[in-house]
Amino acid sequence: MSQKEYERLVKKGRDFMRHLPNIVLDDWQSDQELKKPQPPLCKASVSKEIYPLKRNFQDIEIKDDLTSILIKRKSHRVYSEEKISSNQLSYLLWAIQGVKDIRGDNYATLRTVPSAGARHPFETYLIINDVTGLKPGLYHYLPLEHSLAFLDEIRDIPETINEAVCGQTWAKKSNVLFIFTCIAYRAEWRYGYLAHKPALIDLGHVGENLYLAATALDLGTCGIATYDDYFINDLLKIDPKEEIVVYLHTLGTVKKEDQDKEQAFYAFLKEQQ
Amino acid sequence: MSQKEYERLVKKGRDFMRHLPNIVLDDWQSDQELKKPQPPLCKASVSKEIYPLKRNFQDIEIKDDLTSILIKRKSHRVYSEEKISSNQLSYLLWAIQGVKDIRGDNYATLRTVPSAGARHPFETYLIINDVTGLKPGLYHYLPLEHSLAFLDEIRDIPETINEAVCGQTWAKKSNVLFIFTCIAYRAEWRYGYLAHKPALIDLGHVGENLYLAATALDLGTCGIATYDDYFINDLLKIDPKEEIVVYLHTLGTVKKEDQDKEQAFYAFLKEQQ
Repeated sequence: MSQKEYERLVKKGRDFMRHLPNIVLDDWQSDQELKKPQPPLCKASVSKEIYPLKRNFQDIEIKDDLTSILIKRKSHRVYSEEKISSNQLSYLLWAIQGVKDIRGDNYATLRTVPSAGARHPFETYLIINDVTGLKPGLYHYLPLEHSLAFLDEIRDIPETINEAVCGQTWAKKSNVLFIFTCIAYRAEWRYGYLAHKPALIDLGHVGENLYLAATALDLGTCGIATYDDYFINDLLKIDPKEEIVVYLHTLGTVKKEDQDKEQAFYAFLKEQQ
Repeated sequence: MSQKEYERLVKKGRDFMRHLPNIVLDDWQSDQELKKPQPPLCKASVSKEIYPLKRNFQDIEIKDDLTSILIKRKSHRVYSEEKISSNQLSYLLWAIQGVKDIRGDNYATLRTVPSAGARHPFETYLIINDVTGLKPGLYHYLPLEHSLAFLDEIRDIPETINEAVCGQTWAKKSNVLFIFTCIAYRAEWRYGYLAHKPALIDLGHVGENLYLAATALDLGTCGIATYDDYFINDLLKIDPKEEIVVYLHTLGTVKKEDQDKEQAFYAFLKEQQ
């Protein structure tokens, strides 16, 4: 890539982060203002095999307070391959996308995370490798019902996870791979061509709740921004023009005695310094 | 705007959210790989008037556990204009950008939020309106020292806040306006022209911690993506080519009896339905 092309791409990225300079000041109106029909609050299930999740978390034991959770929170990439329970998974799904209320006549969902205009344009898919009570395979989270829809079997789950994350082999030992997509029009209906920057910030709200809730359960997660869109589009059977893969998170069990192994991921620092 | 131009802008936004399709598959190397000098971990203070903050939060009383905090968290836009303490502000700043450790020989900061490659490209500025022990004005948070640098007096703080958020007048009653900027090169050094999408997700990690920590302190916040870049650039005296205003958050005191007033912000729903 030429220096000029590199600089053009960097400028494009920086410009995307700005607000007002990207606004075209003319008579633009959103589809909401134009009274076009509102898209569905959530993507309907394409499966009839539904697994309801518990909404009562009284038996989820969280010993740490928020301050301790913030102190403990870190990215984990070494997993000990023990079981996690479907109730732990239920808690994590509720913490990241759970619906607390409906505003108006199905105008918006109010969730455990904030989202610009309460649009909540995300869908959550799971590659479940090892969760008690749920057979391995591909699932879709249904936030309104707080249920999991089973989508498909996966022949070789660790290898599928590995391909999805572009060969970051440590991820193969995850109990669950979370795959977040964005149904762009759900946010564009209200915010038009300005929808995408706030949606990415909203995605971080989701990711942080996953970090904190996993930490609270003594589980490990790592947010992943390097992934194979093409491979995942095929896996999820989504239309990538409308529904965009945007963020991944591993989830695994962790052991204190494995902390040292995490340092291997930073070995390059010794060479550099 | 023509339909064609609108569609071009929407496509540009959607494309920005993707991963692999944006990668130019040639011999591109990051400045880190090219062994170019690493930019500073944090922006140095441009002020000599420094106010150290407490790092000991034993007297910060948090009664709710994580589950209750997630249930209670919501955006607040009605503030009761009581004082907040500098220790509460200290807790919030630590929760969103606090430095827990340094990796390598000043290679990276490890913070209370995750950030791609631990680049943490953000700076936090505050318009302080009403915080016990801190005179009103403009401040810059110094994460390494956990201190506030006083930058400037502001003649009319509520009006300045109002202009910064493009006339969202409710924000005038904030005790504090948080302004987050991104020093783009801090992330580009490692991720080049692919830095900006992950940085926006990382920004959401920050915003969510602010939501949760404010909820834990029974304070109210609201994330704001509509703001006047030009006005804020001048206020902060930053170079907008290098340091980009990316996200704002109000912070105010809230009263249970004001809950109904929050509904006024959704009055448009009654008309629509």
